[in-house]
Amino acid sequence: MQMKKSSKNKNCWIDEYHQGTRYGLYGKILVSEQSKYQKISIIESNNYGKGLLLDDCWMTTELQEKYYHECLVHPAMCSGEELSRILIIGGGDGGSARECLRYSEVEHIDMIEIDQRVIELSQKYLPNLGGDAWTDPKLHLHIQDGSEWVKNSKDNSYDIIIVDGSDPQGPAKGLFNKVFFRHCERILKKEGVFAIQSESPEAFKEIHIDTIKTIREVFKYANPLYGSVPIYPSGWWSWTFAAKDKPRYIEPKDYRTKLIEKTCEIWSPRWQKGAFEAIPAFIERALK
Amino acid sequence: MQMKKSSKNKNCWIDEYHQGTRYGLYGKILVSEQSKYQKISIIESNNYGKGLLLDDCWMTTELQEKYYHECLVHPAMCSGEELSRILIIGGGDGGSARECLRYSEVEHIDMIEIDQRVIELSQKYLPNLGGDAWTDPKLHLHIQDGSEWVKNSKDNSYDIIIVDGSDPQGPAKGLFNKVFFRHCERILKKEGVFAIQSESPEAFKEIHIDTIKTIREVFKYANPLYGSVPIYPSGWWSWTFAAKDKPRYIEPKDYRTKLIEKTCEIWSPRWQKGAFEAIPAFIERALK
Repeated sequence: MQMKKSSKNKNCWIDEYHQGTRYGLYGKILVSEQSKYQKISIIESNNYGKGLLLDDCWMTTELQEKYYHECLVHPAMCSGEELSRILIIGGGDGGSARECLRYSEVEHIDMIEIDQRVIELSQKYLPNLGGDAWTDPKLHLHIQDGSEWVKNSKDNSYDIIIVDGSDPQGPAKGLFNKVFFRHCERILKKEGVFAIQSESPEAFKEIHIDTIKTIREVFKYANPLYGSVPIYPSGWWSWTFAAKDKPRYIEPKDYRTKLIEKTCEIWSPRWQKGAFEAIPAFIERALK
Repeated sequence: MQMKKSSKNKNCWIDEYHQGTRYGLYGKILVSEQSKYQKISIIESNNYGKGLLLDDCWMTTELQEKYYHECLVHPAMCSGEELSRILIIGGGDGGSARECLRYSEVEHIDMIEIDQRVIELSQKYLPNLGGDAWTDPKLHLHIQDGSEWVKNSKDNSYDIIIVDGSDPQGPAKGLFNKVFFRHCERILKKEGVFAIQSESPEAFKEIHIDTIKTIREVFKYANPLYGSVPIYPSGWWSWTFAAKDKPRYIEPKDYRTKLIEKTCEIWSPRWQKGAFEAIPAFIERALK
């Protein structure tokens, strides 16, 4: 990414580079700092509002964040048998917590974010992402490594587990392996749902396939769902859902659907049904 | 796009700019010329093979072309009652003709491309796109304006009509209006299927919605289908299919499916089913 000191607060192209491709937004760099874990940048784009990059990779922008958060959160939240206790790993921008709190059944959310500066900068520059979630007494923030948290959690302690991490390099590396998934399976209730962003089938094909395969070794049922997040490499993105008793994430509960669908940008029961089926042929073959 | 003379044949970023975003491939510009209709560029990218741009907009690359052509061609070709006579409007790179010729039922293809230079440069630099199609006696090339061709065609003369044009500005402008669609409906056989690339629901939201609405005013049945073409603005793309007797494009014929699915990259009956359902909520609302 072009992030010389001289370009701060001046209009410029801010690009993520990935294997011979780049995707950029035109705008200004507002913040660029090195936290204990990663480089954090806050930008203001001309067309998508403010945005967040970690280690020069696009994480979110105000006007694209729903393309990601709705797809990660609602297939899980609409299908878990109960929604009392929710675990969010990562999700420091607050968007996943906000979407979870739309369900009145939620009593307690543990959000485990490794990097406090991501939360602080999101609260300051991207307040709409977390919205009222940050002050909701149901939300319990823990600044900690997610892989440690799941190791120390009791069996059957969460109804829904949402893994909202960055790419499996840097601080999110520990969120894409069998040991981590095994703990998630152990601490998930029998009728619960596990959800994770599972990278691009195109730009991160191998990681995508490996992630699904590994989750399938741990959970009895798991399926990827495909959508679009233009700021991410290739724009073609996936989320994977897993369950223990049946592939319950396929069937959203009607009364929850009715509660949220009118105010969703992307997600609808119809969209979800399609997104689970729209697996590209080359991925379907690789998973066989 | 950075296309100074000095950058020809040197490695550089080749970007398409769109409303405060850009998407680029790293590579070399091999050809950059002005035809009678548009600027045509041929590039060699590091990661996606050779590519074609028209008026500085990405059209295709060797290693992404199937993401587009399979989605445009197979839902139509798998569901038309007969496949004797095919009309392709545009499609000068040859990819649509190649995919159509995989069906042995095809007897005659009229391909109407306005810009002979697109064909010549594609044949020279992107020979894999057209493949054997260019020398197939079933393929009949006509260098002509597609909107003129449909005006002069007889009623009920084609089994399948495929509109494979660029964005509705420049030479493809005449391929996105009601007069054009009316002629397509008139010259399509009763049990035929009409297919058109219908832009991005995200980067070209208004054009996308207008295109579907206009097609629905002309054809009794029409539905958009959603997929991903990373080189296009936002990467999130759509194709719209229409028919006269029933929404027959929804149901691919088994015997044709079996013929092609093993060698498709993206398309499968399952993928297609999902892609028709995966309509984002904001588009579904806009179409009501």
